[in-house]
Amino acid sequence: MISGPPRGMRDFYPEDVRLRNWLFGLWREVSESFGFQEYDGPVVESEELYIRKSGEEIVGQLYNFEDKGGRRLALRPEMTPTLARMIIARGSSLPKPIKWFSIPQCFRYERMSKGRRREHYQWNLDIVGAEEPTAEAEVIAAAIEFLKRVGLTRDDVVVLLSNRRLLSALLKSKGLPQEKFPDVCLVIDKKGKVSDADLHAMLVDIGLSEAMIANLFDVLRIESLDDAERVLKTAGAPLAPLDETRKVLECLSHFGLAQFCRFDISIVRGLLYYTGPVFEFFDADRKFRAICGGGRYDNLLESYGGERVSAVGLGFGDVVVTEVLADKGLLPDFSSGLDYAVIPFSEEQRKVATEIAQSLRSQGRTVTMSLETKKLRKSLSDADRAGAAKVIIVAPDELAAAKVVLRDMKSGEERAIPIADLCAP
Amino acid sequence: MISGPPRGMRDFYPEDVRLRNWLFGLWREVSESFGFQEYDGPVVESEELYIRKSGEEIVGQLYNFEDKGGRRLALRPEMTPTLARMIIARGSSLPKPIKWFSIPQCFRYERMSKGRRREHYQWNLDIVGAEEPTAEAEVIAAAIEFLKRVGLTRDDVVVLLSNRRLLSALLKSKGLPQEKFPDVCLVIDKKGKVSDADLHAMLVDIGLSEAMIANLFDVLRIESLDDAERVLKTAGAPLAPLDETRKVLECLSHFGLAQFCRFDISIVRGLLYYTGPVFEFFDADRKFRAICGGGRYDNLLESYGGERVSAVGLGFGDVVVTEVLADKGLLPDFSSGLDYAVIPFSEEQRKVATEIAQSLRSQGRTVTMSLETKKLRKSLSDADRAGAAKVIIVAPDELAAAKVVLRDMKSGEERAIPIADLCAP
Repeated sequence: MISGPPRGMRDFYPEDVRLRNWLFGLWREVSESFGFQEYDGPVVESEELYIRKSGEEIVGQLYNFEDKGGRRLALRPEMTPTLARMIIARGSSLPKPIKWFSIPQCFRYERMSKGRRREHYQWNLDIVGAEEPTAEAEVIAAAIEFLKRVGLTRDDVVVLLSNRRLLSALLKSKGLPQEKFPDVCLVIDKKGKVSDADLHAMLVDIGLSEAMIANLFDVLRIESLDDAERVLKTAGAPLAPLDETRKVLECLSHFGLAQFCRFDISIVRGLLYYTGPVFEFFDADRKFRAICGGGRYDNLLESYGGERVSAVGLGFGDVVVTEVLADKGLLPDFSSGLDYAVIPFSEEQRKVATEIAQSLRSQGRTVTMSLETKKLRKSLSDADRAGAAKVIIVAPDELAAAKVVLRDMKSGEERAIPIADLCAP
Repeated sequence: MISGPPRGMRDFYPEDVRLRNWLFGLWREVSESFGFQEYDGPVVESEELYIRKSGEEIVGQLYNFEDKGGRRLALRPEMTPTLARMIIARGSSLPKPIKWFSIPQCFRYERMSKGRRREHYQWNLDIVGAEEPTAEAEVIAAAIEFLKRVGLTRDDVVVLLSNRRLLSALLKSKGLPQEKFPDVCLVIDKKGKVSDADLHAMLVDIGLSEAMIANLFDVLRIESLDDAERVLKTAGAPLAPLDETRKVLECLSHFGLAQFCRFDISIVRGLLYYTGPVFEFFDADRKFRAICGGGRYDNLLESYGGERVSAVGLGFGDVVVTEVLADKGLLPDFSSGLDYAVIPFSEEQRKVATEIAQSLRSQGRTVTMSLETKKLRKSLSDADRAGAAKVIIVAPDELAAAKVVLRDMKSGEERAIPIADLCAP
């Protein structure tokens, strides 16, 4: 006896695929309306693509293995390294800015607590080769556009924004040694997910003094960009990271989206390659994990041997948003969408029934046909269970008059209609 | 420096994804028009799902590995075992016949000669719980419908049909022990791919006598169902497998597709689970490998612990058909399809430019916007390289009159138009 899918993986039955296709269809539609082009890479990549630095959760959770040729491979945990590799391979032949999107399935070998999965699909939007905060605004606006199209409003969703350069400047003004900053980011990313006591312990672990930890918690209490400005000014630090953050918000106001967005110093993201503005979307009640997130990465392509080029990316998983939509009753009802079932009364009528089915199909209708002749009641029940809206019964009496019986499955109404009416070109 | 994708895997740049989406879109459209419902399973499955019997190429080429939890897993080499598993899991709650389709990426660890790949996408059509040859006709008709929609005719493609039950009866009448039949099928599947001498050697390897091999080659020289009938009648063997094969062809004639199809005794397929009618599609010139193939499998679900239920399946890869279409010049030209590029003359005009872009997007247009202001000539060149059909320039003089400049990128024609004309609701 064969069991279900491997632990943490999903089967997609037709009703699940209908949901998935609806989601992916909207992601594609929004991406294309913003001028993004779709790309994709292999679901299995070289492991080295993901071996950046220790500390990141994503590296510890790599779904990696050795193939028969002794190659170290991994199921892709995220798409950005593939994007970087593909862009580098094409060199300068790609006109910049590059605006690409993708909907890869991504894998993490997580411990299987709390019903978490080992795979999800992730809508990725990236703009490579754009220095200005207009790029952040563009990907955030696209993600909000998607949320609006599925029926979520600014009462349902909040976009929290911050900036690693700003956080770095603030912490530096409070005495944090620069080399500690990456580790500090990975710890701060856990804020809200673990207790403040655990957070404190993690900060001790990475070698911060009690005084520094107290300063760090002070910084995390900053509530506005104006507050941040006062701290930086007091320290005589440069204000560029502050201006950059304000510019992202200003660009979003051009989209009429300022009211979706709020500064939140504790947003840092869990990936080391972010260097500037970062953001995460949450449901307003904070009942769920982040809906999506992203930020600017300046050094990733260079770290893979490409030129230094600034980029902005956003990753948007299929799982959390589906949970949010289900919670709010916003998931559509996905019917099978079958227009017709054609039932030949006996094998004598199969040829005509086939021709009618084929004609309807050529007109763009979705049509199934009984593959064997049974008692009519049984065939009608099959058609009903298959979800057919209408049934066409091809029976000898009507056929003699070049007609068939058309039955509406909802009303139960039946009438004989000329075949020519169905098969009009 | 990071190299390309892992050996045998493909990157999909935007032009490749456009081709892939076109192909998948047509596969979906045709599947749905025939009343099939889409499903999907995990790209990684338990290895045991594929460990059936030795001898099959697909088992020797399994892309398998052990995960961190010590589970034996494999990248799916084909979809039918997943289909069987999923149907068994739902038990009798699924109304039969089940008509499902899927477009999985499948993996085989082949030796990398002749530019062969380790992955491909494969359109799968399956009908589970239908005993009649109408099911074979249905999946074959759907595949031909797809070929017609991409511009291939019966001058381009031939459907070769046979039947394992028929081959088995013929070989039995010539003295082949029943237990040798599965191995013989795997060898015959190589006919045309290896020399007859190699075929002979393989038949010796599986333990056939010279006399039996000679008889087998006699059977493979059978050219028509009438010839086959004579052989069976001479041996006093039952004619049921012959009738079944003729019935597939008769059902196909109901679809008006008889002229696409031809009986060919050497068609057996390389998978052991086929039990009845089998078929493969080829380009008429036989320049390429099989375009698609499939057949009836009676025992697969039972072998996984499900009920015994007859099923018919078809697998249709993305690679060969693309080669055939390219060879015949039938691949469409896939442009980026970008409707507009919006260019603010300076940062002063960014807010209005953003509003215009958003309005056009809400009208279903695909729109990119300059993310930084550059010299106009440079911005126009960017828009051109991005493939924009039209450019909207938002400049102060026209803006004072509530107008923008609309430039047709093909003709180069420019004219000032009221913003209200673009942003009509």
